[in-house]
Amino acid sequence: MKNRDVSLPHIVVLGAGFAGLKFCQAFPTELARITIVDRQNHHLFQPLLYQVATAGLSATDIAQPVRGILSDKPNVVVRMAEVTGFDLPEKKVFLEGDELGYDYLVIALGGAASYFGHDEWAQYAPSLKSLDDALKIRRQILLATEKAENEPDEQCRRELMTTVVVGGGPTGVELAGAFSELARNVLRKDFDHIDPTKARVVLVEGGPRVLGAFPPDLSARAQRQLEKLGVEVHTGLHVQDIRAREVVLPNETIRAGNIIWAAGVAASPLGKKLGVETDRGGRVKVLPDLSLPGHPEVFALGDMITLIDKKGQPVPGLCPAALQMGEYVAKLLARELGSDRKQLAERKPFGYFDKGTMATIGRSSAVAMVGPVHFSGYPAWLAWLGIHLLFLIGFRNKFSVLTQWVYSYLTYKRGARIITGLSGEKSAGSA
Amino acid sequence: MKNRDVSLPHIVVLGAGFAGLKFCQAFPTELARITIVDRQNHHLFQPLLYQVATAGLSATDIAQPVRGILSDKPNVVVRMAEVTGFDLPEKKVFLEGDELGYDYLVIALGGAASYFGHDEWAQYAPSLKSLDDALKIRRQILLATEKAENEPDEQCRRELMTTVVVGGGPTGVELAGAFSELARNVLRKDFDHIDPTKARVVLVEGGPRVLGAFPPDLSARAQRQLEKLGVEVHTGLHVQDIRAREVVLPNETIRAGNIIWAAGVAASPLGKKLGVETDRGGRVKVLPDLSLPGHPEVFALGDMITLIDKKGQPVPGLCPAALQMGEYVAKLLARELGSDRKQLAERKPFGYFDKGTMATIGRSSAVAMVGPVHFSGYPAWLAWLGIHLLFLIGFRNKFSVLTQWVYSYLTYKRGARIITGLSGEKSAGSA
Repeated sequence: MKNRDVSLPHIVVLGAGFAGLKFCQAFPTELARITIVDRQNHHLFQPLLYQVATAGLSATDIAQPVRGILSDKPNVVVRMAEVTGFDLPEKKVFLEGDELGYDYLVIALGGAASYFGHDEWAQYAPSLKSLDDALKIRRQILLATEKAENEPDEQCRRELMTTVVVGGGPTGVELAGAFSELARNVLRKDFDHIDPTKARVVLVEGGPRVLGAFPPDLSARAQRQLEKLGVEVHTGLHVQDIRAREVVLPNETIRAGNIIWAAGVAASPLGKKLGVETDRGGRVKVLPDLSLPGHPEVFALGDMITLIDKKGQPVPGLCPAALQMGEYVAKLLARELGSDRKQLAERKPFGYFDKGTMATIGRSSAVAMVGPVHFSGYPAWLAWLGIHLLFLIGFRNKFSVLTQWVYSYLTYKRGARIITGLSGEKSAGSA
Repeated sequence: MKNRDVSLPHIVVLGAGFAGLKFCQAFPTELARITIVDRQNHHLFQPLLYQVATAGLSATDIAQPVRGILSDKPNVVVRMAEVTGFDLPEKKVFLEGDELGYDYLVIALGGAASYFGHDEWAQYAPSLKSLDDALKIRRQILLATEKAENEPDEQCRRELMTTVVVGGGPTGVELAGAFSELARNVLRKDFDHIDPTKARVVLVEGGPRVLGAFPPDLSARAQRQLEKLGVEVHTGLHVQDIRAREVVLPNETIRAGNIIWAAGVAASPLGKKLGVETDRGGRVKVLPDLSLPGHPEVFALGDMITLIDKKGQPVPGLCPAALQMGEYVAKLLARELGSDRKQLAERKPFGYFDKGTMATIGRSSAVAMVGPVHFSGYPAWLAWLGIHLLFLIGFRNKFSVLTQWVYSYLTYKRGARIITGLSGEKSAGSA
């Protein structure tokens, strides 16, 4: 059990993603007691989630129990609960069946998939936000291949072996590349009636090019690398409708056994309950010090906010930005709580430091940019591997992921091709 | 794709457990074409399933895709399907929505939990047979601890932190030991309001001692080791009833947030559809060559049969016995299919070779017997570790499991303390 000095101010942190967790780790715990709330019991290393969906890693490789990560921190209490709302004037957070009072509030509830107003598409085209999403997509893809193996109808078989990924951002590109590799390299030898190398993977992007946040030369390289892996890339096409096993595009309708949504990202819907201005995606407009207007004791950070930083650049919804925000608020609050009087007027605005951005496409291929330097192919892929291993939390996870990557690279096999949750699926289907 | 010579006889193998898989691996594939059918896409290393339930290993560590294991075998086709029945005179197996003709049939469908006629207990006391069972038990235990942390009522809190394991066989002993360790060593530091070391783990056995299949001295040692780990061992008590969070014993009723059923094992219910004699647990009575009476072309093996072997000893429902049966039938059929004429009269009866039996209890403790030699404690535990690693299929899995064991041993942490399937749980609850 942990001791809690109730005379200390109480900081409530909502969300154990990169921003919330970094805050807890960077804050000097002798200055306050912290309660961190998350609806899951684990911190998720989201950048590798697509590898769980594509059977490269297992769920536990990219997740760590929040309690375990913070167990050595005195005065930090972990609470697994769903946040339902706020009472900012009363300094209260509402949880399912409970409430928490706070002196300072750090809101880092992350993002959610956005179907651009077509929430009915979600049932046919799952998105990739949680471990359960990833396990569901993995089950769906592996089951579709098993069904195709026993499907006598040629048309139906081709349909089961078609995967459409909607959205050409980093997640969409990574998923499409990994699905194509799964079929072409991994499943190749294992089936009798079907030829997995004939599996069709289609990537649909509404904008003019994939990886729109990258410079055009890297987008072009990414597209070439995807096509080399067998992915059909369609750009400039907006999805008109998604139905059961059907994606309707302006020029054609693709029938596909697997449809994955990687197009829209919005903020956690809880952002709208804060009573402050939000953008079209529900992202909270914060002040330059990441606090809410009129509430210097409430901060919002990570993927759920929108901000032009002190250098005049929009801060991207990426893991490094979330980490930097968590650290920024931790230092800011530590300074204020550590000094004798509160010096709110002296808060320096947050500035994002761009260390570089990268996206992986498949075995030995990736694109990366560090400042003005662009690179792609094998060197970018090695850099991607190294950096993702480095930031993965927990020695055991690093070691396990490294082992699996080396194993997959050498053998062209994937260790996590296990279908679980079938019984649940069935009962859900019959319910 | 695999080539299939349709002029070869067709062997259908039902079940990709130890017996069925061993048959496929030991049979010389040039003599016949084989179709192996399983309702899961993976072979499960059942002896370590309890470690997934107790958050020591992840699901993919102890499972391997059947297709992957057999991908180098020509003439072996893997089929993921549910078996629904048989037509032995017509030499047909019925699958969900399909049927398969055979020349030889190898039935190895394994066991199922038996609630001794009280199937209504299953909803309150899950058993441990599949990966999904293990993940469900893990979710339940970890969630109960999270709930206890936020439970204001003392009585309710104690209840949430009580686990009852029904059944003192190897699985029950392993589960009870591992649950007690999870609370005392792993979760110890991680909670604020509750003291996980006060968690209560109760093992209830109807017979006079735990590990009834072992000699009395080893049973006594196992009980002492369990008690040292903090497990309350109750022997000679038959469970009268199981209700929601309640186990009714003759002398008391224990209220418990977690109830696990490890008491009864029966054969797959499909055994009863074969039209031959079965025992009380539904186990098929086979001839000494493991074939069904009147059907020399149909074999039943593994946990779903009951047999007194040629040495006059009952063959136990253990992994080594299943492996030996798979190999025995593979050799027998290879001999018959390889010779010019069928020599059915010359089939030698199956004999079980007992290499020793062991059960683990917890960190550094286990019991083992090899012939007349009994040993326990650290040496037995090391032997247990080594043998289980040795038999685990797949290099990647061995390496990953070894890593996790070393990690857990050194750090007292467990890597797989991740709750998944919450959304499914919720929707199932609301459906």
